[in-house]
Amino acid sequence: MSRDDAVAAVREQVAALHAELVRYGLVVWTGGNVSGRVPGEDLFVIKPSGVDYDDLTPASMILCDLDGVVVPGSEGSERSPSSDTAAHAYVYRHMPEVGGVVHTHSTYATAWAARGESIPCHITAMADEFGGEIPVGPFAIIGDDSIGRGIVETLTDHRSRAVLMQNHGPFTIGSDARDAVKAAVMCEDVARTMHLARQGGATIPIDPAAIDALFDRYQHVYGQQEAPE
Amino acid sequence: MSRDDAVAAVREQVAALHAELVRYGLVVWTGGNVSGRVPGEDLFVIKPSGVDYDDLTPASMILCDLDGVVVPGSEGSERSPSSDTAAHAYVYRHMPEVGGVVHTHSTYATAWAARGESIPCHITAMADEFGGEIPVGPFAIIGDDSIGRGIVETLTDHRSRAVLMQNHGPFTIGSDARDAVKAAVMCEDVARTMHLARQGGATIPIDPAAIDALFDRYQHVYGQQEAPE
Amino acid sequence: MSRDDAVAAVREQVAALHAELVRYGLVVWTGGNVSGRVPGEDLFVIKPSGVDYDDLTPASMILCDLDGVVVPGSEGSERSPSSDTAAHAYVYRHMPEVGGVVHTHSTYATAWAARGESIPCHITAMADEFGGEIPVGPFAIIGDDSIGRGIVETLTDHRSRAVLMQNHGPFTIGSDARDAVKAAVMCEDVARTMHLARQGGATIPIDPAAIDALFDRYQHVYGQQEAPE
Amino acid sequence: MSRDDAVAAVREQVAALHAELVRYGLVVWTGGNVSGRVPGEDLFVIKPSGVDYDDLTPASMILCDLDGVVVPGSEGSERSPSSDTAAHAYVYRHMPEVGGVVHTHSTYATAWAARGESIPCHITAMADEFGGEIPVGPFAIIGDDSIGRGIVETLTDHRSRAVLMQNHGPFTIGSDARDAVKAAVMCEDVARTMHLARQGGATIPIDPAAIDALFDRYQHVYGQQEAPE
Repeated sequence: MSRDDAVAAVREQVAALHAELVRYGLVVWTGGNVSGRVPGEDLFVIKPSGVDYDDLTPASMILCDLDGVVVPGSEGSERSPSSDTAAHAYVYRHMPEVGGVVHTHSTYATAWAARGESIPCHITAMADEFGGEIPVGPFAIIGDDSIGRGIVETLTDHRSRAVLMQNHGPFTIGSDARDAVKAAVMCEDVARTMHLARQGGATIPIDPAAIDALFDRYQHVYGQQEAPE
Repeated sequence: MSRDDAVAAVREQVAALHAELVRYGLVVWTGGNVSGRVPGEDLFVIKPSGVDYDDLTPASMILCDLDGVVVPGSEGSERSPSSDTAAHAYVYRHMPEVGGVVHTHSTYATAWAARGESIPCHITAMADEFGGEIPVGPFAIIGDDSIGRGIVETLTDHRSRAVLMQNHGPFTIGSDARDAVKAAVMCEDVARTMHLARQGGATIPIDPAAIDALFDRYQHVYGQQEAPE
Repeated sequence: MSRDDAVAAVREQVAALHAELVRYGLVVWTGGNVSGRVPGEDLFVIKPSGVDYDDLTPASMILCDLDGVVVPGSEGSERSPSSDTAAHAYVYRHMPEVGGVVHTHSTYATAWAARGESIPCHITAMADEFGGEIPVGPFAIIGDDSIGRGIVETLTDHRSRAVLMQNHGPFTIGSDARDAVKAAVMCEDVARTMHLARQGGATIPIDPAAIDALFDRYQHVYGQQEAPE
Repeated sequence: MSRDDAVAAVREQVAALHAELVRYGLVVWTGGNVSGRVPGEDLFVIKPSGVDYDDLTPASMILCDLDGVVVPGSEGSERSPSSDTAAHAYVYRHMPEVGGVVHTHSTYATAWAARGESIPCHITAMADEFGGEIPVGPFAIIGDDSIGRGIVETLTDHRSRAVLMQNHGPFTIGSDARDAVKAAVMCEDVARTMHLARQGGATIPIDPAAIDALFDRYQHVYGQQEAPE
């Protein structure tokens, strides 16, 4: 596939995936953003800043290099990329296996983040998807590399593809943009279920060996062989 | 009706019923599954593993025997069935009166399951539908017959058509797939209402004789005579 | 307007209003029901029992006399009316000013009902709409006049158009079916808001004189003069 | 732009923005209202009283002067404006920089209002949007200028564009009607997240200097230069 075709394919995927954030109620107004790495290139595609979800098209997505700089002359380059672009770029630079990044302020995940509390793994769906707890990352604000560094330091060598940045909200990573969106959807789902479970009393831990078995099976067996996810 | 016609009818029903799981918010992403027994045959139809809800069609449903083995050469047999197929098959083998099985990780039912707490019957809608509490089943993970056995042991001779598998989520059964989906919808509804009721203080028990009367009436009087449900 | 035209108009209104129960999330599956009195006649129109919301049409609504008996030979009379028909009929017989009745198991209102706790009026929207607290009615089950009698005894000479039947759920009344549906929608809305308010700490009472002023204004000034509601 | 064109543009914008209140679940039935100032004129456009959201059109919006009096002979002037018109007018008279006002009874914001409790700023999205806590305004009821005065006194020289009127609900202001609707959407979003966060335990405060930095950046950098918001 040519570079142009690869960029076009990621533009289309990233634009379409923003609709999943809306469908699952993870975002309001213009908040939240999805990005996807262009396979084989030191480039990624990300949402423009402050644009309505209804108005996102492949052409309005913005192409950036791995320093988060908009590629001059590329389609849409007259607009500003998401204000979280630096954090996405930092992740792509330091985690070469990551092909997609998602950030939202989804309600329940952000509620855990506001307490700086990791989500314990007391439901099997969470063992499947995250292989244990969803960790908390440091408090960091926009302006330097501190958000990106916090994501990378927390998720490196961690099974979880989601991190709850303290007082802020979840960032998720994946093998591609779709996988990162799935992680964002599942992160909010388990954040909600575990929140409600604990409101009613103490939850029952799962034996770590069972968590390991569930996580291993889900990575290798679940889904279709021709299209694993 | 020929075997082929019977299979085709169940494929159509099971494919369509998955949309009800989405409509009532019981599932996210590709989670959850519905199956239906083929009347008069030792066969059932179930959802493929890890496929988007938007992409489910009668032809993509998978036909299995009562050991959970995909029928060779049947439509869609090149794909893998739901990873919960063994549990569905176990139920069909051991509960001949069951014509449909549903599994979800619906939020409130799973929250009760994470505490290993059965849902008390303090609302009349629950007496109607479940005839008393919704019980908890054992902790069990995928890999052998333990999930299926846990469902069957918990629901045999129990009025409830729903069981909350500990740390996991609800499984429901019914006279056919539609009846099992109804049980899944009502299970989440009463799980939510009872959760919220208890958050505000103590709930009032219902006299067991009244529960019996409500359950009996609902099984025999509710709905249309020509199309009972 | 002829009797036939009057019946046709109420059939159309009542069928359409069921969609509002779905829109506002007050019902699941086939639960819930709306009825409307035929102006100038000892008749009312109500939903059939156990029929999908998607399948409700004016022709499928059922015409009953004020004893809750289906009018022989009327359109749809081959089907059974809602299992709550006796309660609706009791209300129409004993409260001649009532033109519409609605029953749901809406989540938050039913949660208050499960505790047998009336909803205190600590928000102005509730003062506007209900003029004070929403009261609890007695525990009663289907089979005799006890539900209808409980509704009538609780709401007679009460400002509220909603009653929370203990362990059961809300019944609402109105000047016509639309007004009763509005009361059902607002009842759930204030039940939810007051539930959440109290979860966070003590709520502030409203001075009874202010409640009186708000209720009085809302009955006489709000809305359009040509189409008061 | 002529006065007529300016009025027409605001009618269109205000009518369309009401759909955002529905989309984000901030209103039920006919509750809630949006208004927008006509640029360069002592006029504003507001929703009619008690009309269904589905029936709102540019022509049905109502044109008022800054005393809240309907402009005689203007389109739609045969109907009554929103019963909150006096409060909107008071804000426009006393806060010349305000171009839009929104009022809802959105669930979580109203729950904080029922306790008379301001929302603490423990999430970065709230620092971005509101620059600190969302304050509570006084108890006031319709009938004189007390609601409008309470809004103006609370929000003057305050960073927040939202105020929680005690026992009542949120009012928000903005540079135009769209900006005020955004504030209403974000107010409910942070009210919900902070409510849920606190239900699970103590939340972590954000350093005031970080709040200042986030608020400053969001006002000046976020969004597109050609279309800041």
